[in-house]
Amino acid sequence: MNLRQNAAPTSPGELLGLLRDGQARTRAELATETGLARSTVRLRLDALMHAGLVSGGNDAVTGGRPASRFVFNARARVVLAADVGATHATIAVTDLTGEPLTMERLALDIADGPDAVLGLLIDTWRRMRASHLPTVPIAGVGIGLPGPVAHSTGKPTHPPIMPGWNGYDVPARIAADFAVPVLVDNEVNLMALGEHVRCFPDEAHMVFVKVATGIGSGLISNGQLHRGDVGAAGDLGHILAPHGGDVRCRCGNSGCLEAVASGPAIAAKLHAAGLDATNNADVVALVQAGSPIAGQAVRQAGRDIGEVLATCVSLFNPSLIVVGGAIAEAGEMLLAGVRESIYRRSLPLATERLRIVTSRAGANAGVVGAASMVVQHVLSPSVLDRELA
Amino acid sequence: MNLRQNAAPTSPGELLGLLRDGQARTRAELATETGLARSTVRLRLDALMHAGLVSGGNDAVTGGRPASRFVFNARARVVLAADVGATHATIAVTDLTGEPLTMERLALDIADGPDAVLGLLIDTWRRMRASHLPTVPIAGVGIGLPGPVAHSTGKPTHPPIMPGWNGYDVPARIAADFAVPVLVDNEVNLMALGEHVRCFPDEAHMVFVKVATGIGSGLISNGQLHRGDVGAAGDLGHILAPHGGDVRCRCGNSGCLEAVASGPAIAAKLHAAGLDATNNADVVALVQAGSPIAGQAVRQAGRDIGEVLATCVSLFNPSLIVVGGAIAEAGEMLLAGVRESIYRRSLPLATERLRIVTSRAGANAGVVGAASMVVQHVLSPSVLDRELA
Repeated sequence: MNLRQNAAPTSPGELLGLLRDGQARTRAELATETGLARSTVRLRLDALMHAGLVSGGNDAVTGGRPASRFVFNARARVVLAADVGATHATIAVTDLTGEPLTMERLALDIADGPDAVLGLLIDTWRRMRASHLPTVPIAGVGIGLPGPVAHSTGKPTHPPIMPGWNGYDVPARIAADFAVPVLVDNEVNLMALGEHVRCFPDEAHMVFVKVATGIGSGLISNGQLHRGDVGAAGDLGHILAPHGGDVRCRCGNSGCLEAVASGPAIAAKLHAAGLDATNNADVVALVQAGSPIAGQAVRQAGRDIGEVLATCVSLFNPSLIVVGGAIAEAGEMLLAGVRESIYRRSLPLATERLRIVTSRAGANAGVVGAASMVVQHVLSPSVLDRELA
Repeated sequence: MNLRQNAAPTSPGELLGLLRDGQARTRAELATETGLARSTVRLRLDALMHAGLVSGGNDAVTGGRPASRFVFNARARVVLAADVGATHATIAVTDLTGEPLTMERLALDIADGPDAVLGLLIDTWRRMRASHLPTVPIAGVGIGLPGPVAHSTGKPTHPPIMPGWNGYDVPARIAADFAVPVLVDNEVNLMALGEHVRCFPDEAHMVFVKVATGIGSGLISNGQLHRGDVGAAGDLGHILAPHGGDVRCRCGNSGCLEAVASGPAIAAKLHAAGLDATNNADVVALVQAGSPIAGQAVRQAGRDIGEVLATCVSLFNPSLIVVGGAIAEAGEMLLAGVRESIYRRSLPLATERLRIVTSRAGANAGVVGAASMVVQHVLSPSVLDRELA
C-alpha cells in the first residue's frame, strides 16, 4: 500500500502549493492533476490571480485555440531576511522562492543589544527597498539570531553571547516599522532550513552541522525543522566528547565538544605547537597551505565531532549530514575525520544510505533559510486561505 | 503573532478530526467552531453518518425545539493490533480510539519465523472477532515487531534477533487474510506512540526509553513519530556509554550502553556479586526486596543511560522523557540515576521544563500504539476523504 497519498488540493492555498514548483500549467492540466472540477480550478485561480500570486497568459497555441497557462508569480511580494551572527549580518530582500534580489554583508556587534542591531536591519531593508522594488508589498520578515530562540514568540531565551537580548520581543520591535508577520529563529536552524529548501529538498531527515567559533546543528525531521521544546534542539557544542578529557568549557562543564573541536580550540592547539594561529581563518589558511600539523589537528577535530555525530546518527537516523561553517572551508580533512568516527561507531543499518557532505548553500544558507521560513508560513494553505477569504 | 492558526475543516475527514475528541455537538456548534456554512456542515455530516463514523440523535431539548447532537462513533470499525516481542505477543481487537475491546498475551518465539508468528496472530484475531463484534468492519491491521522496520513497506530490515524476517513482506502476508490497510513498525516506536496518544497527547517533543533485555527509544517530533531514514531512529543501545570502558557488546563494538546497562548486564553484575540473578525479573525482585547491591546496580545503570540521554536532550530538546520496559518496574532507583546524569550534563535551558517520568500506559503501550498508528492513517483526512468520495 502507498502511504504517501495526498488529498485533492481543495483550497486556493493548496492549489498554489502545486504551482510553487515553478511549472506553468493550463486549467485542464490543473484539473487532471488535482481531480478538481474545471469550474473549481477556475474559481481558485481567480482568487490567486486577484492576489497577484499567479500570472496567466495565452502562450500555448498548439493547433486549436490557445490555452492559457498559469504560473506562480514569485515576484508578487518580497521578504525581508537577515542572518545575524556575533560580528556580522547578511541582510537581503528576497522573492517568494527565498532567492535574494539584493543582499549585503555588514559588520555589527551583537552585544550592542537589540535596539542598535534591529535598528541597523530596519534601516538597511528600508534603503534596499527604496532602490529595488519599492512598490512590491512585503510578505513578511525573517531573522536568524546566534542563540536559542523561542520560535513561537520570537524571543531569545538565555542566549549566552547576546547580552541584553534575553526575552526581548523581536517581532514587536520589527512590527513597529513593518506591519507584516515577523518570524525569528536560531541561525543554525535557518542554515539547516536553507540547505534543505535550496539544495536537498527531498531529504526528509537531515542534520546540518556548523563548525566555527561554536559548534551547533539544525535538524530536519519528516521534512520539517525540529526546534525542540524551547528552541534548544541541535545543541551539539556542549555534549560530552568521548575523548574530551578534562578540558574546561566556557559553559562550566568539562570535556564539551566545543572545548576540544571548535575553531578557537584548534587555533589554541596550533598556537601551542608554535604556529601563528589565533582564529578560524588562520586555521583554514594553515590547512590550505599544507601544514601537516594543522591538517592533523583539523582531522582530529573532525574525529571528535564525528564521535558525537555517531550518537546523533543512532538516535536520529538521518539520510544526510551536511557540514558547514568557517572550519568546513578547510575541506576534506575535517570531513575525513567526521566520516572515520561515524562509520566506526554506528550500526551498519544506520549508515547504509547515509551521505556526509560539505555545505552547498554556503555563506547564504542562513539568509535563504530566514526567507524560506517566512515563505513557508505566509504561503501555507492555512494562512493564505485565511488571507484570501 | 499566533503561528498556530488552522484552516477551516473543509472536508468530511477534517470535520471528523474535530469530532474525534469525543464531544457531542449540534450542527450550529459545528458551524460556529469551523466557520463553515450550516448547509456545508449538513453535507459533511451526512457523508460521515452514511459511513457510520458519526451518530446523531435528538437528545438536547432545552426550552425550544430539540437540536440534534452528533458524536464520533468509535465502534463503527475495529482495528486488529499486535505488539510482538521476542518471546511474547500482546494481541488485541480495538475500537477507533485505539482502546482494546478484547486482548490476550500469548507466548511465542520470534525465531520461529514470519509464517508461524503471523499465522498465530491471524488465528487469534479470527477467534477474537468470532466471539466479539463479528459483523463490525475491520479498519486496518497494526503490528509492532522487535527490530527495525522500513515503515513505508512494512518489511523488517536486518533485524538482529529475528532470523528469517529480513525483508519479509509482512503486509502482503496479512492482506492475504484481511483485505485492509496493514501498517508495521518497530515495537519501541509503537510504545512511544501509545504513550503519546494515550497519556501525553500535548507533548510535541518526547522521548520514550525502553530498558529491558535491550535498550531502545522512540522519538516524537512535532507531534509525529520520527522514524528516520530506514526506520532505525532511536537506537540507544549501541551508543558509546561515556563510562562503558572495554565491555564487549554483542554488536561487535565495545562500551555500548546495552552492554553495561541492560537487564542482562545488571543481572550479570549481581550474579558476579554472589546474588541469584539471571534475568530482568530477578533484578526487579531483588530491588523490590530491598537489596542494597541490586539497588545500587540499577541506579548505576540509570546513570549510564542518563549519560546517553543527556546527549539526546541536547540534540532533541524534548519536554518529556518516559522510561518504560521491564527494568523500569524497579521504580525510583532507575529514574534517580537517569535524572542525576541528565541534570549534571545538560545546559540549564534544555532541562528548564524537562520532565522525566515512568511509563503510564504500561504493558499495553505497544498494542495501543499499533492500533493508534492504524487509526491515524485510516482516519486522516487524505485517506478518509478518498474513501468517502
